[in-house]
Amino acid sequence: MAFERIDSETIYDGKIATVKKDTFRYEDGEEAEREIVEHPGAVAVVAHDGESIYLVAQPREPVDEQSLLELPAGKLDEDGEGAEATAKRELAEEIGKGARDWKFLTRFYTSPGFAQEECHLYLATDLYDEQAESDENERIEIVTRPLSELDDLIAGCRDAKSLVGLLWFRSYLR
Amino acid sequence: MAFERIDSETIYDGKIATVKKDTFRYEDGEEAEREIVEHPGAVAVVAHDGESIYLVAQPREPVDEQSLLELPAGKLDEDGEGAEATAKRELAEEIGKGARDWKFLTRFYTSPGFAQEECHLYLATDLYDEQAESDENERIEIVTRPLSELDDLIAGCRDAKSLVGLLWFRSYLR
Repeated sequence: MAFERIDSETIYDGKIATVKKDTFRYEDGEEAEREIVEHPGAVAVVAHDGESIYLVAQPREPVDEQSLLELPAGKLDEDGEGAEATAKRELAEEIGKGARDWKFLTRFYTSPGFAQEECHLYLATDLYDEQAESDENERIEIVTRPLSELDDLIAGCRDAKSLVGLLWFRSYLR
Repeated sequence: MAFERIDSETIYDGKIATVKKDTFRYEDGEEAEREIVEHPGAVAVVAHDGESIYLVAQPREPVDEQSLLELPAGKLDEDGEGAEATAKRELAEEIGKGARDWKFLTRFYTSPGFAQEECHLYLATDLYDEQAESDENERIEIVTRPLSELDDLIAGCRDAKSLVGLLWFRSYLR
């Protein structure tokens, strides 16, 4: 099933969404064009203090949700900041916390059929206050939920990366 | 945090990716434009026979993976076929199985920051052979894995919807 990319063309270059039309050649000799939405990658963080888990509620216009409850998360900067550094920055910017203990959990593609986005999932524990400035997150609300309500949280979660993090925590970490 | 959509413009209309630039007005009076990748929605299926779980391996050009292991899945048709009907069709097309028992598990947005895609997750059990024709799936390979290897499967899974399904199964269904 091997393929190679033999051509790549940017067909729409927007602020968030950049769409490429790439041409691939497969080992059977066939060639096919594919539209691909470029994405720099992302991080998400399961952050808890042993009692409660820290979440953010924010409007998600693309899916018409006035307030979607998610793990703290953010996009990788395109200036080469690594995934763990991004996770630390986003945790401080979004929920005003640092963590003395960081652990990489897993990585996954959010929608590999059409988008390039890869999400790196971290666990952050031994938390402390560390406020960071950010102008991009003005509509974000910090939400804490007791770990004892984890199953309710999972049942109501509508965001893939957050579901992976919550279910991973339930399966391997609690 | 309420918002309303006050304008919508299609700025790129491709075969797979359609990008809109929508304008939103927030309750504080501010207005903002957002780029949104349209998507008809998708289904994914946790299908097992009590011994093994059924998966598919396929090339995923957008993320440069020669072979990504995923749950059977597919896009909703735009002609109004419902999510459960789509799940049944995809299971037959991708792994050649029908199921006497179907259960809706949950639904989630794969990347709500920029894409509209919502994925509906189902459990399919009491399987039987039911081959269906499909010309779109020629590069898909059926893979079965013993349920006893579920943790290895989860550790190596790089696809968000499949991770949600496998972790959901591990948490609530096995």
